[in-house]
Amino acid sequence: MQNRITSLFGIKYPIIQGGMIWCSGWKLASAVSNAGGLGIIGAGSMYPEILKEHIQKCKQATKKPFGVNLPLLYPDIDKHIATILEEKVPIVFTSAGNPGVWTETLKAAGIIVVHVVSNEKFALKAEACGVDAIVAEGFEAGGHNGREETTTLVLIPQITSAVKIPVMAAGGIGTGKTMLAAMVLGAEGVQVGSRFVTSEESSAHNNFKNMILQAKEGSTQLSLKQLTPVRMLKNKFWEDVVYAESNCASKEDLATLLGRARAKKGMFEGDLVEGELEIGQISGYINAIKPAGEIIAEMVNEYNLALSNLAHKQLEE
Amino acid sequence: MQNRITSLFGIKYPIIQGGMIWCSGWKLASAVSNAGGLGIIGAGSMYPEILKEHIQKCKQATKKPFGVNLPLLYPDIDKHIATILEEKVPIVFTSAGNPGVWTETLKAAGIIVVHVVSNEKFALKAEACGVDAIVAEGFEAGGHNGREETTTLVLIPQITSAVKIPVMAAGGIGTGKTMLAAMVLGAEGVQVGSRFVTSEESSAHNNFKNMILQAKEGSTQLSLKQLTPVRMLKNKFWEDVVYAESNCASKEDLATLLGRARAKKGMFEGDLVEGELEIGQISGYINAIKPAGEIIAEMVNEYNLALSNLAHKQLEE
Repeated sequence: MQNRITSLFGIKYPIIQGGMIWCSGWKLASAVSNAGGLGIIGAGSMYPEILKEHIQKCKQATKKPFGVNLPLLYPDIDKHIATILEEKVPIVFTSAGNPGVWTETLKAAGIIVVHVVSNEKFALKAEACGVDAIVAEGFEAGGHNGREETTTLVLIPQITSAVKIPVMAAGGIGTGKTMLAAMVLGAEGVQVGSRFVTSEESSAHNNFKNMILQAKEGSTQLSLKQLTPVRMLKNKFWEDVVYAESNCASKEDLATLLGRARAKKGMFEGDLVEGELEIGQISGYINAIKPAGEIIAEMVNEYNLALSNLAHKQLEE
Repeated sequence: MQNRITSLFGIKYPIIQGGMIWCSGWKLASAVSNAGGLGIIGAGSMYPEILKEHIQKCKQATKKPFGVNLPLLYPDIDKHIATILEEKVPIVFTSAGNPGVWTETLKAAGIIVVHVVSNEKFALKAEACGVDAIVAEGFEAGGHNGREETTTLVLIPQITSAVKIPVMAAGGIGTGKTMLAAMVLGAEGVQVGSRFVTSEESSAHNNFKNMILQAKEGSTQLSLKQLTPVRMLKNKFWEDVVYAESNCASKEDLATLLGRARAKKGMFEGDLVEGELEIGQISGYINAIKPAGEIIAEMVNEYNLALSNLAHKQLEE
């Protein structure tokens, strides 16, 4: 199967690994790209010199296309942009910010630019800014998320009918079945985050990976909505947030409670008590740590199986 | 196409019209059943004598199977149960309460019993109580909703692997595309609410129907979480709730603000300012009031089209 997403990136499978903070360095990105998907380095948790190192190592580990995810609110963004241009990164996914600022610079350097959105308004804006494709991310996704709380099932048909450029679906997708459902809704590819957090090549701390394996349906919540909404596992830090909110904490109180480097503490350093553990709703059905290549092969196999299960499912009109 | 849901109910299409308060009387239920789906009378907003009248009129208006939706927390529930038994209603969907209390009585009378759940735990409990099938309703659904906030995309695979009885998907489904996506996820039928609220035969007030046509992506929110979470359109009443919550309103304050009969005021009497306007996220892409039969024909047609679009979408393994 070939479509606009596989052609745009030059990949075998329309499976994109989300460029997540603290989890997705060169090891994960190159493993995904080598398995026929699109691996993405998550620049949001890297200092500029670290990003450079990861890009260089990724180039050595794979001859396939890979990308960098760049949160546009990153404080040293001009340094990250300079690194990306110097290292001739072929694909950049931008998120969390205004796609109007850097898209032109990146496109002028021949880079394929994708922007991540969580609502229709930003999808239209990103398209108007000239990006090549969009990731539309639903409410069920882990980490930072939109205020509209639109779920993937509702968001994808809405956005694919609003824009002309190809759309990848994110949020709630980690199996071949959910991938096929996203394609039915009009997506031409999927971005998978949580499932790759628990891959062998992910740089997430093992404590965090193991806690994800224990998660059930209902183990995450979109929290801290007064600041930036973020979906996380319900641990002691989350309980502290809930307690503060139920005691009418102000935005400032919550910012103080959150403090700095909570996500690093939880996801990278493995502090399951005080850390912020960003993960999506599908954590409820992740039950094993596997190599990224095996995750992709499994998804492709499940997708094909789900597709063949649809034979003779036509309704009589 | 025949499956366990079409066989269980004896219907042509696995499309169930949600039994919604203030919207689904005998006119809507019989229109849906006559069009090959399963129409459901929403007993939650009816006095016992009104329910009786609707059941009798429904029997006159259709020879096809239909059902009654019964919220188990309904204050006069024993009267509703008596009416259902007397009138030999063939199918009952129970919701909002413990399926352990009435399932046996209904089953003993030969009634097909379905329970509506929003999480895996209640799905397992309903199955253990002997219900024939489950409706699993995701976060995007209108009206009252679960605390886990699990979306349809995540909930359906979770529940279909947890239980053996057939599962219908609800929440975010109002088109043939979203119906096919739900079937891919493992559902054997879909329950559609919001789309039928705007049908010609729905008893929702025209003001409410017209406001739904204006809704965009992001026009609803799951609100009043300190009481029972309910998804509604963002109107003046909703703004009052948000204001109260941002001023640290207690549960009691919110109950006072909500008062009684807010849903009736909005949905049935058409007060778009002070009423509670329960509707799902798919309101964002409902843009016309149509007869229920036309909605079903359109869904079936879209479903078949989406299915045929999947030809040659197999991935190379």
